[in-house]
Amino acid sequence: MSHRKPYQLVSREWKKENTEFEVNGVIFGKDLVLIAGPCAIENREQIFTISEYLSKLNIRFIRGGAYKPRTSPYSFQGLKTEGLKLIREAADKYQLGVVSEVMSVDKIEELEEYVDILQVGTRNMQNYPLLKALGKSKKPVLLKRGMSSTIEEWLLAAEYIVSSGNERVILCERGIRTFENATRNTLDIAAIPLIKSLSHLPIILDPSQGTGIRDLVSPVSAAAIAAGADGLIIEVHNQPNEALSDGDQSLYLDQLKDLMPTLKQIAHIRNKHFDFENTLSFSPNLS
Amino acid sequence: MSHRKPYQLVSREWKKENTEFEVNGVIFGKDLVLIAGPCAIENREQIFTISEYLSKLNIRFIRGGAYKPRTSPYSFQGLKTEGLKLIREAADKYQLGVVSEVMSVDKIEELEEYVDILQVGTRNMQNYPLLKALGKSKKPVLLKRGMSSTIEEWLLAAEYIVSSGNERVILCERGIRTFENATRNTLDIAAIPLIKSLSHLPIILDPSQGTGIRDLVSPVSAAAIAAGADGLIIEVHNQPNEALSDGDQSLYLDQLKDLMPTLKQIAHIRNKHFDFENTLSFSPNLS
Amino acid sequence: MSHRKPYQLVSREWKKENTEFEVNGVIFGKDLVLIAGPCAIENREQIFTISEYLSKLNIRFIRGGAYKPRTSPYSFQGLKTEGLKLIREAADKYQLGVVSEVMSVDKIEELEEYVDILQVGTRNMQNYPLLKALGKSKKPVLLKRGMSSTIEEWLLAAEYIVSSGNERVILCERGIRTFENATRNTLDIAAIPLIKSLSHLPIILDPSQGTGIRDLVSPVSAAAIAAGADGLIIEVHNQPNEALSDGDQSLYLDQLKDLMPTLKQIAHIRNKHFDFENTLSFSPNLS
Amino acid sequence: MSHRKPYQLVSREWKKENTEFEVNGVIFGKDLVLIAGPCAIENREQIFTISEYLSKLNIRFIRGGAYKPRTSPYSFQGLKTEGLKLIREAADKYQLGVVSEVMSVDKIEELEEYVDILQVGTRNMQNYPLLKALGKSKKPVLLKRGMSSTIEEWLLAAEYIVSSGNERVILCERGIRTFENATRNTLDIAAIPLIKSLSHLPIILDPSQGTGIRDLVSPVSAAAIAAGADGLIIEVHNQPNEALSDGDQSLYLDQLKDLMPTLKQIAHIRNKHFDFENTLSFSPNLS
Repeated sequence: MSHRKPYQLVSREWKKENTEFEVNGVIFGKDLVLIAGPCAIENREQIFTISEYLSKLNIRFIRGGAYKPRTSPYSFQGLKTEGLKLIREAADKYQLGVVSEVMSVDKIEELEEYVDILQVGTRNMQNYPLLKALGKSKKPVLLKRGMSSTIEEWLLAAEYIVSSGNERVILCERGIRTFENATRNTLDIAAIPLIKSLSHLPIILDPSQGTGIRDLVSPVSAAAIAAGADGLIIEVHNQPNEALSDGDQSLYLDQLKDLMPTLKQIAHIRNKHFDFENTLSFSPNLS
Repeated sequence: MSHRKPYQLVSREWKKENTEFEVNGVIFGKDLVLIAGPCAIENREQIFTISEYLSKLNIRFIRGGAYKPRTSPYSFQGLKTEGLKLIREAADKYQLGVVSEVMSVDKIEELEEYVDILQVGTRNMQNYPLLKALGKSKKPVLLKRGMSSTIEEWLLAAEYIVSSGNERVILCERGIRTFENATRNTLDIAAIPLIKSLSHLPIILDPSQGTGIRDLVSPVSAAAIAAGADGLIIEVHNQPNEALSDGDQSLYLDQLKDLMPTLKQIAHIRNKHFDFENTLSFSPNLS
Repeated sequence: MSHRKPYQLVSREWKKENTEFEVNGVIFGKDLVLIAGPCAIENREQIFTISEYLSKLNIRFIRGGAYKPRTSPYSFQGLKTEGLKLIREAADKYQLGVVSEVMSVDKIEELEEYVDILQVGTRNMQNYPLLKALGKSKKPVLLKRGMSSTIEEWLLAAEYIVSSGNERVILCERGIRTFENATRNTLDIAAIPLIKSLSHLPIILDPSQGTGIRDLVSPVSAAAIAAGADGLIIEVHNQPNEALSDGDQSLYLDQLKDLMPTLKQIAHIRNKHFDFENTLSFSPNLS
Repeated sequence: MSHRKPYQLVSREWKKENTEFEVNGVIFGKDLVLIAGPCAIENREQIFTISEYLSKLNIRFIRGGAYKPRTSPYSFQGLKTEGLKLIREAADKYQLGVVSEVMSVDKIEELEEYVDILQVGTRNMQNYPLLKALGKSKKPVLLKRGMSSTIEEWLLAAEYIVSSGNERVILCERGIRTFENATRNTLDIAAIPLIKSLSHLPIILDPSQGTGIRDLVSPVSAAAIAAGADGLIIEVHNQPNEALSDGDQSLYLDQLKDLMPTLKQIAHIRNKHFDFENTLSFSPNLS
């Protein structure tokens, strides 16, 4: 790998120290960041129940799709503006930051009004007009890896955003497509330390999309932190069995709580700050 | 594969006979259709030289990118509107149809003004806002397979277009991403008869993107017709070694001419009409 | 691809002209060679019925497994020596050559007694002790591509055999493992002309393993010949629905007959000799 | 995944509790087991230097290939019997167990004389005659995952061994082959908890083959333990830059030492016994 790299601004050669930036009181690139929430925003009760639970766990970010890229045109496509209003209202009540996906240039402005971090999904990692437009945004961008993208293509996609003016890019490993179909995707765990060596940008991991199987989410989350990830984005649902999408890979709320102590211990080993003192003394009886 | 298929309007169950439609005097789904031209529109001399040559071979369609999706933000991104004007002018002079890529919803209107067939590239196969908008277009859509898309996902992408109102969709197999790196992609030759059994839509093949190696283009083109493809989209250039993109996989103009007789013979075996009588008696001395 | 190649004896640089050798009256590397037969030898009636049919089609080789590498230890593992005796007896009666798989060094001697061509299966392509031992055999070796082997690894496997003393190696493309699961494997059609440019060894294609779907076998067979293959190895069965293995991908005998005229026409275009005059005038009423 | 599983004896349904067995004082399936050593046994100095270092780190197993499966017939193929004698002598001096690869049935007896655990390499995972013969061995078998094998095929390969009479099988995840070439293979981290849920057999991970890059070995090793692995097999060399094979992915001896404290901490979180008290107080000045 001694060949000249085709990306510049995102490389460690360009900038030696980690890129760090604060959103809702947490520092990406330094602290351990947890983002959790449902695949899609479905209704008021769902999003408020989950938001309250997250706030009690001291988790600072809720995720939830309002515009959903679905493989079939006949699948639920999201609540759109109505969904954005709901998640913002819930997030404000519980002091959470909001992460939600933007699928096209003409929706950026609306998304910016409601969310704190704009997510680019795996299918849009090489949607270059979208990336360039996000380079003009004042909001940080969570850039998911394309399901069949190489590390180099991924960093070049980030370069599109950064070279257009927005340095606050968070990379997110979410599994790649391989011959193995026992899991939904194959998580590329080595991508975490590899990205850390090649780039100064923060990198988090999505164990839910990455595995597609609820019971694998916790051990894989622990592995990601041990490998040096800056955070996790995890699907949780108050009623996974009734979720409109991705129920099989969503944690029950109590499973998320049970995962916290392990993550805290491993974060400590990796010198990542992770503020869950309150969490451990709290015994939830919500779900 | 007895499970209920998730797509409907594009399926053979929905419509038994082939979808056929005429563009510039050629019937997609019935005739053998050849589309050829450079990866990118570069300048007037290039596009007029190639157009003249194609017309002498009796090829009816020129391809050429004006808006190019490039992996790196620092690569040539296309001549944009200027390129569209050039290719339209050349095409009009030589009675060619034009195929060019559209990368975003806000450019559809401009593309429609200049081209006859709107191409969706491999990176945008699951750009659903784009697919829905193309469903409202009056122009046919050439839908390339995503580089890591399954047959089912590809047909569902076509379903997005058709269910939005545009039945004139041409599928294009262009190779999938695999572990093999001796070729740029791995052409899925079995996809041709498989699509023919699952869907009524026409399917063509791109041997240039599919292999990435000039000398493999001709044998693979012959194979595609033998397997039952409705056509080919081939990269050619008047000066491949000086091409701004994809030179290594572009045929020399004379290589395209040399390929014609073989394609004609195999098309005949497959009962596909292919009008190249003039071609064979013509001895070109252009390049 | 200008880097120095790691293989030598199998390369075109080492030997410019095609390697040609005669087995049972057919010249590999020059003629179009068809090998057909069941996945596994099952019983006397099966193997004699198929052999008679093949001989009437003027096909010169029967395939059939006596030692079967099965993914599960509980699946039918083949008739072993009894199977070899059956296929030899049938082949002798109908003047056929026999192709059968050898799975281990200690069985080579037995196989050599009964068969004309020793097949190395996809799972054993990198079984180096086996390859070296086959380099000492007097029989030609049919070397299937490993299901996840690169072109280079495949040619290096052939180099093991040739460098051990046996030049009569036939390469066989049988599909590679990819994310696509609509077909059993993904046939790498470009491998045919690529191997032809890199190596002097003959190359054939297995459309049955390569697709896993009966109705795709004929169009893919035609494609392989159009791409320049030296032959085909096709699974056929007198009663596919009752086959002990691979029934779904086995042709009915009459489907094989129906494929002959197309193959003959394409072979003619490719200047491959293919002697099926008798075939076409013969109207079979066997199956 | 509710379908009936094709394997039986290796499944959790068959046997609920972990399979545990002791080798050289360590309990596979219960303790955290470390196996380290060079890719190939090269000479006396190398193997004794490494053995001494391992023993000072309280690591109980040395790995080293005497029979090497190499992609090219012209690469170093191992010291064979001479290598086995060397590694046994060194291991005896330093109270280590020996792990070495067996490539063919006819070498099993010789290997059994010198080693404690017989390794089946990735290329031989579906070498069924070899698996069956190992089912008759008195030695435990380390079964590496085939580079393109599914979880199900891997467990079925283990079933071949167990159903032939040998229950002491250790599974080893070593990365699968994907489109990504930034790393040598793509480690399937989710395979660890997935295997744990499907099977009672111990599973370890090979971060060296899995990544092919020295600097990724330590973070990936930590991730494996965090995900629940029963151990690691790591390539180390006293002079990686002069190694006859796999030097780029071999740790320096001091890198192995530096990794110990992190592994110990994570093992503790996962309730895996890992006896390195001596290690940490020892300051090595060997390499």
